[in-house]
Amino acid sequence: MLIVKKFGGTSVQNAERVQNVARRIVEEYDKGNKVVVVLSAQGHTTDELIAKAKELNPKCSKRELDMLLSTGEQQSVALMAMAIHALGYPAISLNANQCPILATSTYGNARIKDIDTNRINAELDKKNIVIITGFQGINKYGDITTLGRGGSDTSAVALAATLKADLCEIFTDVDGVYTGDPRIIKNAKKLKSISYDEMLELASLGAKVLHNRSVELAKKYNVNLVVRSSLTEEEGTVVKEESLVEKMIVTGVAVDKDVARISVVGVPDIPGMAFKIFSNLSKHKVSVDIILQSIGRESSKDISFTVSKDELEPALKAMEDLKGVSYESISYDKNIAKVSIVGAGMDTNSGVASDLFEALYSSAINVNMISTSEIKISVLVEEKEAERAANAIHDKFIR
Amino acid sequence: MLIVKKFGGTSVQNAERVQNVARRIVEEYDKGNKVVVVLSAQGHTTDELIAKAKELNPKCSKRELDMLLSTGEQQSVALMAMAIHALGYPAISLNANQCPILATSTYGNARIKDIDTNRINAELDKKNIVIITGFQGINKYGDITTLGRGGSDTSAVALAATLKADLCEIFTDVDGVYTGDPRIIKNAKKLKSISYDEMLELASLGAKVLHNRSVELAKKYNVNLVVRSSLTEEEGTVVKEESLVEKMIVTGVAVDKDVARISVVGVPDIPGMAFKIFSNLSKHKVSVDIILQSIGRESSKDISFTVSKDELEPALKAMEDLKGVSYESISYDKNIAKVSIVGAGMDTNSGVASDLFEALYSSAINVNMISTSEIKISVLVEEKEAERAANAIHDKFIR
Repeated sequence: MLIVKKFGGTSVQNAERVQNVARRIVEEYDKGNKVVVVLSAQGHTTDELIAKAKELNPKCSKRELDMLLSTGEQQSVALMAMAIHALGYPAISLNANQCPILATSTYGNARIKDIDTNRINAELDKKNIVIITGFQGINKYGDITTLGRGGSDTSAVALAATLKADLCEIFTDVDGVYTGDPRIIKNAKKLKSISYDEMLELASLGAKVLHNRSVELAKKYNVNLVVRSSLTEEEGTVVKEESLVEKMIVTGVAVDKDVARISVVGVPDIPGMAFKIFSNLSKHKVSVDIILQSIGRESSKDISFTVSKDELEPALKAMEDLKGVSYESISYDKNIAKVSIVGAGMDTNSGVASDLFEALYSSAINVNMISTSEIKISVLVEEKEAERAANAIHDKFIR
Repeated sequence: MLIVKKFGGTSVQNAERVQNVARRIVEEYDKGNKVVVVLSAQGHTTDELIAKAKELNPKCSKRELDMLLSTGEQQSVALMAMAIHALGYPAISLNANQCPILATSTYGNARIKDIDTNRINAELDKKNIVIITGFQGINKYGDITTLGRGGSDTSAVALAATLKADLCEIFTDVDGVYTGDPRIIKNAKKLKSISYDEMLELASLGAKVLHNRSVELAKKYNVNLVVRSSLTEEEGTVVKEESLVEKMIVTGVAVDKDVARISVVGVPDIPGMAFKIFSNLSKHKVSVDIILQSIGRESSKDISFTVSKDELEPALKAMEDLKGVSYESISYDKNIAKVSIVGAGMDTNSGVASDLFEALYSSAINVNMISTSEIKISVLVEEKEAERAANAIHDKFIR
């Protein structure tokens, strides 16, 4: 078997943890498997490097930041190879250039285009355990680009897909995917399996277990993905095509507090007004999440939408250009949160929405906005009530 | 003009120093010059990374150590590019792979084989200040090799030679080359210029101003080299073909305390015995410095030689194999030091040796061993008298 194992920054944050991970890796190797390891930078290395950069240049070049940050992963892989050697096993570290892992030129947020597997396969054939830097690629100029926060998950899945690995294990500081964040949801349960689509919705809704693009990629290439703990031997959660083991209507509850609501009041009820507003926001690089339109007074309408909290100010600024033309007044609210339920069984089960509202009503929680998709329902509530709302909903659906 | 500027680790050890260096670089750029900058790792980065490696594996692989250590220089160049950007000037950082700088495969002690200047010249043509990682190259496998301690000097001179630069400035924490180490020699004076050969002798005799290989390379390609301070605007010392400005008999005095003496007593006076001893030492990777042979008792001779202090034990161990065959007994002394004088005018000036012995005799310092070359005389003295000896010799020749 060829197995790709990815370990995050906390799993390799100091010498002791590096040695623990090294032992897990050689156990797999001892079973006769080929092992490819993908690592993130140690502990807080990336944050410390970013702080150093900002001290010199608050608006530092993204190319140079990628040049700087990529050193963190390179240190991790070299140290891991040394730790594996110390156990008496053969290992070699490779950075994105040595593989090479080819990526786009969008510094700080690149996408993997292709992976040349010749060197990796040659090293595996030499019986080496191959340790590869996550989070990075090289572009057509030979320059280093990084894949954005959490990009090491994507590196691991892309490697598993290209190498046609039998299994891709993502080791993290939690022991699997839960029906909700255990720090928030009292009765959260670990799932034995979850479908790619459900995982995607959960990931984009604020459950930080897996990097979103890694799940997209796993779905596209049908990669056999497992999320498990780097600290325990527990089994973890399988992410796959269909969630067959547990046929649950609702797979999980997610809470996202990084939400702000903007309401645009008195938009003239003539065609093209909504387009004007959202194309203007897009021009200013503001990403809009939930959009809701309601009927207002006298041939006008109100439009509400949500953005992430740090995009609130840019969004309000962008809206100023249209004042008087596209709307009368604007209001906003930073103290809100989004609570969502995700489940593949939802679209064939008409009672879900009413059960959701019943749970919130019983807890006397007011609902601000509602948005639905085939496998998801999101509601906006006051931020201070988010956790109570999430628990009420969780316990209504998951027992 | 095309100018290569090299700054060492202490010159870029924190944000403030990086900003100072950035200002010096843009001053040069503002004069209309093309500027290539070579940097070492910040401050103690390299030592910290070595400590991390040794913690995981005291005998860590040199390939993996190079992979680890090379990140230090990559961080330096990225941070410097950011600092230059912050001043409003164009700059780009390049690592050994991006140039590329091609080197041999001797991990930890590689030599530069060739530098591809296409990318560097293209960036200079785009009006960029080009910041390049010192200390590293890539081998034929695309793997990173480092050039050994102080290798950034060599990187800078090799770049200056290949780019046909008009000037190569080595910025360091001293303001030039002195007639002796100012911390030891009370009356040490800064030299306006020194020849490549004199600099080579001084470098190999323990004056740690310039990396030895960098001087060899500068001599070979006739690179216009200047050693100067990164902290002051003082002029520094020019290293060039002939020391024309100051025709001094003795250019400098060097003290090297990293010396141990081994005396092999009772070597049979038959051909091949010296060869047997030194080929055996070479087989055990022991480097021998000064060798002296003297006549012993009854058809036998004594051979004394010096090694660095940390090679004393391996040398004694290597000698054990030959006991009884090639010699009778062995003695050694760790508490010695080598004091040397260097000067191009020495070989045409017969009084130098006698002046040297006079200086030592007047100070009542006993001489242990003597070794001479065309432009150098070295004497071994007791370690505790090394500084007094060096000062006495210095003041005899340099006024």
